[in-house]
Amino acid sequence: MSKPSDYVVGVDLGGTKILSAVIDRDYKIVGTAKKNTRPERGPKVVMERIAACITEALDECELKPSAIRAIGIGAPGMCDPATGTVLFAPNLAWRREPLGKRLSRHFGVPVFVENDVNVGTLGVYHLELARAKNPPRSVVGMFLGTGIGGGIILNGELFRGHNFTAGEVGHMILRADGGPQCGCGNRGCFEAFAGRLALVRRIAAAAKKKGGNTPLHKLLKDEKDHKIKSRHIAIALRKRDPVVCKLVGEVADYVGFACVNLIHILNPDVIVLGGGVMQSFGEFVMPRVQKIVRKFGIPACRRGVKIVGTELGDEAGILGAAVLAWQNLDTKPRPS
Amino acid sequence: MSKPSDYVVGVDLGGTKILSAVIDRDYKIVGTAKKNTRPERGPKVVMERIAACITEALDECELKPSAIRAIGIGAPGMCDPATGTVLFAPNLAWRREPLGKRLSRHFGVPVFVENDVNVGTLGVYHLELARAKNPPRSVVGMFLGTGIGGGIILNGELFRGHNFTAGEVGHMILRADGGPQCGCGNRGCFEAFAGRLALVRRIAAAAKKKGGNTPLHKLLKDEKDHKIKSRHIAIALRKRDPVVCKLVGEVADYVGFACVNLIHILNPDVIVLGGGVMQSFGEFVMPRVQKIVRKFGIPACRRGVKIVGTELGDEAGILGAAVLAWQNLDTKPRPS
Repeated sequence: MSKPSDYVVGVDLGGTKILSAVIDRDYKIVGTAKKNTRPERGPKVVMERIAACITEALDECELKPSAIRAIGIGAPGMCDPATGTVLFAPNLAWRREPLGKRLSRHFGVPVFVENDVNVGTLGVYHLELARAKNPPRSVVGMFLGTGIGGGIILNGELFRGHNFTAGEVGHMILRADGGPQCGCGNRGCFEAFAGRLALVRRIAAAAKKKGGNTPLHKLLKDEKDHKIKSRHIAIALRKRDPVVCKLVGEVADYVGFACVNLIHILNPDVIVLGGGVMQSFGEFVMPRVQKIVRKFGIPACRRGVKIVGTELGDEAGILGAAVLAWQNLDTKPRPS
Repeated sequence: MSKPSDYVVGVDLGGTKILSAVIDRDYKIVGTAKKNTRPERGPKVVMERIAACITEALDECELKPSAIRAIGIGAPGMCDPATGTVLFAPNLAWRREPLGKRLSRHFGVPVFVENDVNVGTLGVYHLELARAKNPPRSVVGMFLGTGIGGGIILNGELFRGHNFTAGEVGHMILRADGGPQCGCGNRGCFEAFAGRLALVRRIAAAAKKKGGNTPLHKLLKDEKDHKIKSRHIAIALRKRDPVVCKLVGEVADYVGFACVNLIHILNPDVIVLGGGVMQSFGEFVMPRVQKIVRKFGIPACRRGVKIVGTELGDEAGILGAAVLAWQNLDTKPRPS
């Protein structure tokens, strides 16, 4: 039951698109807007586009900017939450951009900035896990998309680490002897085996090699550009395409190994798996992940550690950003 | 400046030997004793031996049991610090042994029980790192001995995890494709590449294969049992034995990969490397570890994260146990 001005805005800033939503105290989304990011036009333009996207979302639910109490933003990179600065965001080509300050000046409300995967983990934690009867205290969120990112909650709070980069689980080395090259330049990273980009690349290579009569081939024939999309992979899995089953199975195995390492290193109460890959093929991936964890996790370490999915889906970003905003409003003094 | 009764006892309980020490407020060791553990005689006998070892240490410095205020113990396994129970200690073949309660009844003082590697990390943290001008808040302690264990300090406190097993870094999988078998049954664990046991096994195998004229061979000739000990490896390294240099170098590389993973996952302020392997060949290992971290650590993640050794050596266990005792005395109500 929100009062007329009891709203925050949650923003999910990605390399390709900006999502913004007006969200009330009960985490009901009352208005949304979407815009392309256009990072090539520079930080100033992107920040103007974020402001325009927020204004659009407000307009959609017929609220004035004065109705919102704060803005929370998840940004794709390293962020200093104390100053609202995006320290480094490779997908945007940003370095030390004062995102929080700029938007705060524009809207006249506090703006809280945090790494996007941390924001997603925060959202899943507070809107799903913390509502359980015995809420977990320590959670690792692992988001499998184009790349793989993670967030860590310890004792109920985000753990950020020395450089605000804790949770970079995608660059955990799982093959010290090498492997396909990762976006970070290394070989053997978890992401280079199990990210969506890596999977698509391998499926494409396998599709070229094999004869043209598998379920995947039939699917791709109907596409002009022969581009493999998540839905093709999902359909091919359902049709038991042998190559796709094998390669997605390998992805699941690597996700399992990453979970084993997280269980041995951090021994969290819960590991949450989210992101596009889990949304598209979660049903196929999850049982294999559990199998690897049962096989390779030391019983004394893995006992009782839950590995679960999330229902938040695409909205994890904006909802998590709203959690960030409400939490900061409730517990911290307003930043200047 | 300790008052007459301002002492605690620190106990380092290992699978082979028990070390105990009487330690004052300034962490000066005033009396020590040592006993074989004899785990084959069962938990009751081992606990009696611990009590006898403590009494000996008190006797050595001419103190009565009434002079001590608490006992801290590091035990080789999973411990529940709230109850003082050793939940599971494979090297002792213990399950659910009420170590704290038994010793507390014997000596009439509070007894605090914690995993041995956690205790070591606590010791290094409070007696070395926390005394710096800007003390770190998050530290991973990694102890390279026969096996490899770790402890995690976050926000200045031990992080124990869901099953009190956080920090089992030795069983981080670094070769998902397999590798030599680990004590835990898996293949590809960090410990199976970089533990002392693994190293000695590989040096022995290589020594058999090669001709008999390397520095290592000359060293081993003087030994009746041809058993490779740490001091042989250390001397062979100094004499630039090519096989030993290569194999210890590989150990260092794996330690480096483990550090890279810890930096990407946890992004701690400091990683401390300790244990027998570091004591014996630290000078050789450390530069290679740093090199791997520079090469494979993502700059934004590794920047400013320190990788250091410890000076505590063999005394880390008893000193850490004393830290455990003093901290609990100072901050918590006495357990019943």
